[in-house]
Amino acid sequence: METAYFNGKFLPKNEIFISPDDRGFLFADGIYEVVRWYEARFYDLPGHISRMKRSLRELRINWSDCDKFPEIALELIKQNNLEKQPAMVYIQVTRGAARRTHLFPHPEVSPTVYAYAWGFVPDIQSRKTGIRVMMKEDIRWSRCDIKSIALLPNTISFQEAHENGQKECIFVRNGLITEGSHSNIFLVGDGTLYTHPETNHVLSGITRKNILRIAAGAGIKIREEAIQENRIRFIQEAFITNTSSEVTPVIELGGNTLGDGTPGPITRLLSERFDAETAALKG
Amino acid sequence: METAYFNGKFLPKNEIFISPDDRGFLFADGIYEVVRWYEARFYDLPGHISRMKRSLRELRINWSDCDKFPEIALELIKQNNLEKQPAMVYIQVTRGAARRTHLFPHPEVSPTVYAYAWGFVPDIQSRKTGIRVMMKEDIRWSRCDIKSIALLPNTISFQEAHENGQKECIFVRNGLITEGSHSNIFLVGDGTLYTHPETNHVLSGITRKNILRIAAGAGIKIREEAIQENRIRFIQEAFITNTSSEVTPVIELGGNTLGDGTPGPITRLLSERFDAETAALKG
Repeated sequence: METAYFNGKFLPKNEIFISPDDRGFLFADGIYEVVRWYEARFYDLPGHISRMKRSLRELRINWSDCDKFPEIALELIKQNNLEKQPAMVYIQVTRGAARRTHLFPHPEVSPTVYAYAWGFVPDIQSRKTGIRVMMKEDIRWSRCDIKSIALLPNTISFQEAHENGQKECIFVRNGLITEGSHSNIFLVGDGTLYTHPETNHVLSGITRKNILRIAAGAGIKIREEAIQENRIRFIQEAFITNTSSEVTPVIELGGNTLGDGTPGPITRLLSERFDAETAALKG
Repeated sequence: METAYFNGKFLPKNEIFISPDDRGFLFADGIYEVVRWYEARFYDLPGHISRMKRSLRELRINWSDCDKFPEIALELIKQNNLEKQPAMVYIQVTRGAARRTHLFPHPEVSPTVYAYAWGFVPDIQSRKTGIRVMMKEDIRWSRCDIKSIALLPNTISFQEAHENGQKECIFVRNGLITEGSHSNIFLVGDGTLYTHPETNHVLSGITRKNILRIAAGAGIKIREEAIQENRIRFIQEAFITNTSSEVTPVIELGGNTLGDGTPGPITRLLSERFDAETAALKG
C-alpha cells in the first residue's frame, strides 16, 4: 500500500481525494518540487526548500508548515520502504479550495499540500550515450522562474519531442536558447560553459546551480549568457540537467550533431564530478 | 443540495472528488467552458460547443461524449432549480488521471469531465457606469487561443487589478493590446470598432464573435486589428466582453480616461442590441 501525504496526514494514496474546487485543479494555482533520494540521503534538500519558498512567496501562497518538508519527505521514504534505493519525492502546494473565481480566496483558505514518493529507475543509457533533443519556439508564459503547476505548455512540448523520437524539447525565445521542457541546458563553445542566466525565462534549476559550482571548482570558464539558436556551429557539446536526468549529454540539438556525436569532455568531466557527489550521499 | 456532473453521473457536489493523479491537478492539462443561462435558454450554446471541441482537438483530449454537453448543461440547470433565474454552467475536461509523467498517458485514459451550475447575479452597476481597467505586459503563454485551465497568469493578473481598485487587467504583448485576463477588449477610434484579430494571442470569445456580428448588422465599421498601447489618445471608447460581463464599458484604460469618462455611443448601442438578443431568450 502506497502512503502519501495530504494536508498534515500520512494516508494510503488511494484515500486521498482533491476537491473539484481546488485551485490547483481549476486554475493551476500552485507550485511543486521534486527531490531525489540517493539511497541514504536527499541531494541538496536546502536548495529545493529555498526554491519552494521563493515560488510560494512569488504566488503569495502561505504554507506555514513549509519548514516541515524535510520531515515529510523523509517520512514518505520510510513509510514506503524506499530507504535503500534511488527514489523521488514530489510535493505540490496549491492555494487551496474555494468557490471558483479568478480572485484569490477572501478570506484566505488553507493551502492544499500533497506529497508522495516513488522508487526511481535512473536512465543510465541516456546518461552514457547522450540524447537527441529538438528545438522549438518557447510557448510558455514569462514567469518560468516560478516552479508552478501550470505545466500544460511543457507537457505538450515534451510529448511533441517524444513523438519525434527525441528525449527533450529545448525552447528558443526571441532567438535565444532558454531551457528544456523540464530541464536546464548547458552548451560548450570555445572551451567555455554557457547556460542561460537566471531570468524570468528559465527555472533556477537545483542541478543547474550545483553544476555551476562544480564547474567553477574544476576551473572551467563559465558564462551565464544565452546562446543564439543560429550559432549551432559554435556549440561543441551540450548537456541537460535536472533532478532526475542529473547530467545527461546532448549529442544532437535540433537536428544538428554536436561535436563528433558523442558526449564531450567537459560534459563527461562534470557528469563524473556530479556523480561523485551523489555517490558520497549513499553513505 | 448542489448537484454536479462527474464522469457520466449527476452527484451531490460534495461527493465529487478528483484523483491527485489527475492531469488537471498536476499539469493544468485540460480545458473548460462557461455557458450562460438566460432564465429559459442558453446563449449561443453551439458557439461554446464548437470552441470546446477545438480546444479538445488542439490538446488531443478525446472526450467522446462531447456532444452530450447540451443535455448535461440543461440537466444541471434543472436539478439545481435554476430554470427561472440567470445562471451559469461550468465544464472542465482534463486528460484524465495517470501516473505523473509529462508524457500523455499511454495507453490513453478516460478524460475527467466535471461540470456544475450556479445562480448568477449580473454586475449591473459595472455595465451601466463602466469600469476602470489596468494594462500590463502579457505574461501568458503563446496559445491563448486554447481555453485551457492553465490560468495561473490570468488569476494573478486579475488579482493585481483588483488590488489596484480596477475591474480587469488588459494585456499588452509586443506593444499591442491583446485582451483581458478573462475578457476580450474592443476599442473605438475614429468611429471604427477595433479588436485584436483571432490569433494565438487571444481567445476567440463567444461574446466577441456575437458583438462583431451585431456591429456588422448595425453598420458599424469594424477592423480586427491590434491597437498599440501608446495610441491611447486615439481611443474614444472601449468595452470588454465575456459570457458574464456581456458588454461592459471601459471608462478608464491604464490610468487614461476615455472620451468624457462615460460609456460611449457605440458601446451603448452594441450593449443594447446584445441585451435585446438575450432578452429574447427569456421567452
